[in-house]
Amino acid sequence: MSLVTALAGGVGAARLLKGLVHVIPPERLVIIGNTGDDVEFYGLHISPDLDILMYTLAGIVDETKGWGVSGDTFNCLEMLGKLGFEIWFKLGDRDLAIHIARTKFLNEGITLSEVTCKLCQRLGVKAKLVPMTNDRVSTKIISGNLWLDFQEYFVKRKTEDTVTEVVFEGADKAQPAPMVVEALEEAEKVIICPSNPILSVSPMLSIPKINAALKKTDAYIVAVSPIVGGKALKGPADRIMASMGLEVSAYGVAEFYKDFLDHIIIDEVDKHQKKRIEAIGIKVTVADTIMKSLEDSIHLAKIVMNAQ
Amino acid sequence: MSLVTALAGGVGAARLLKGLVHVIPPERLVIIGNTGDDVEFYGLHISPDLDILMYTLAGIVDETKGWGVSGDTFNCLEMLGKLGFEIWFKLGDRDLAIHIARTKFLNEGITLSEVTCKLCQRLGVKAKLVPMTNDRVSTKIISGNLWLDFQEYFVKRKTEDTVTEVVFEGADKAQPAPMVVEALEEAEKVIICPSNPILSVSPMLSIPKINAALKKTDAYIVAVSPIVGGKALKGPADRIMASMGLEVSAYGVAEFYKDFLDHIIIDEVDKHQKKRIEAIGIKVTVADTIMKSLEDSIHLAKIVMNAQ
Repeated sequence: MSLVTALAGGVGAARLLKGLVHVIPPERLVIIGNTGDDVEFYGLHISPDLDILMYTLAGIVDETKGWGVSGDTFNCLEMLGKLGFEIWFKLGDRDLAIHIARTKFLNEGITLSEVTCKLCQRLGVKAKLVPMTNDRVSTKIISGNLWLDFQEYFVKRKTEDTVTEVVFEGADKAQPAPMVVEALEEAEKVIICPSNPILSVSPMLSIPKINAALKKTDAYIVAVSPIVGGKALKGPADRIMASMGLEVSAYGVAEFYKDFLDHIIIDEVDKHQKKRIEAIGIKVTVADTIMKSLEDSIHLAKIVMNAQ
Repeated sequence: MSLVTALAGGVGAARLLKGLVHVIPPERLVIIGNTGDDVEFYGLHISPDLDILMYTLAGIVDETKGWGVSGDTFNCLEMLGKLGFEIWFKLGDRDLAIHIARTKFLNEGITLSEVTCKLCQRLGVKAKLVPMTNDRVSTKIISGNLWLDFQEYFVKRKTEDTVTEVVFEGADKAQPAPMVVEALEEAEKVIICPSNPILSVSPMLSIPKINAALKKTDAYIVAVSPIVGGKALKGPADRIMASMGLEVSAYGVAEFYKDFLDHIIIDEVDKHQKKRIEAIGIKVTVADTIMKSLEDSIHLAKIVMNAQ
């Protein structure tokens, strides 16, 4: 059974992958999740990107928001607010069960990989979801003199700060979690999901052994551009790419991944960029990349799987 | 400002004390709470008796049940159940906020006394609530060959086992929490709340320095009998007293506390026991001890304060 391995951030990745598990047997899929956004609130360990992927694949995600559990309530959080805690990170009551369970297991000495595997099993997720590392890597956002924790920048301050630099603290010494390097090296195909290249994919690329595995693997590496018509479909990817001096376009995404990328799926509206991208040695498929329904996700997943 | 110090279990005690804070300034009241029932679920430290007292005095208790937070939802617990955890201990979403906060503070090295004080402040509780000890004391219920944790006996198995012995693990070596001994020795009055003598009050009595302080104090010690007409108003106190070989009556309660008790409030239905109790050197006030409303609680609290 040949593996398909995906590098995934949060909502954009989840939308593609929920289609992909209808296109290939989920047992063939290994998803490497970003943990640079992981955060602790009230002593609980929260892995926002892993949770988005897990909830989406378990069919319990809040489809409107793309994160959190569908129909969740926020009574625990409201009470934590009354107890004097900051509550800008919107943790629902059902969502909190996952963080309570994760924290309990981690405190018992179980690794994040094992905990993630256990939670996925219990939620009925059949694809294999692995964190990029069991070590602590923290994405820090620098805005001039200001150093912000990722969630502070992303949720509390609503991405309003101009990003001058992004640092992945701990990445240089982090070891990939078990199975990550194998899943990249042994895969038939590696998918770079339509996630923020800087905030969601770069934390993985900045772990030396993951970076090396991407360059070494014989797998065919296909990305889906998260930039459509010069804009990010969601989140601050466009503004961050611009302030990092990258071109905010499908071409810019292809260029960013060019050290290892074989193929990129770009949107119809960006078809004029096809030739420029091909000129740097990357194959291009033009498709409708906007995923609004499960059918859209399945359609795009098929295109990704057919890319060769 | 002379102190009034109460030894308190859960629901019965809370009903009396919510009246008492209308009779004396709450700042005069020190409540020593039983922690023998404390339990850990999902890595969270739960202090059921302290919480009942805190929620009641904060005016947020579920009045019908006598525990938990009024109007609470159980979505986190339900999800924990889906994750494969046991969920017979009914923790509401708002309730969980307290346990999350307590656990966070304890893990930071703050004592249970300090945590309780902090939570009370944040919930607006003006009386001083202190745990009996910051050490671990665990009430174990023995039923023949079976050793049960308190909550296992009380909640999971619904007090259906015949109790042959009750053990307070760790009590002999436990130190009273700061303020406990002082609050007993310096009080004008000590109140033994209408709580289960064996399960709720005995954990405190079995801590040597608390027991010694009760015998040494000049405070006038008044108990309210939790046994009315030969039955416990709530819970298994009657059955447990019987299986411990105690008389299940107001007299039996007075006898149980006789080493330090000055005065007992017994119910009208038990007035025939007055003389027998007085014969063992304990004063008796006969009153209506059933508390159904705040007015009932205030009425009984006045009787307790007038006992002399």
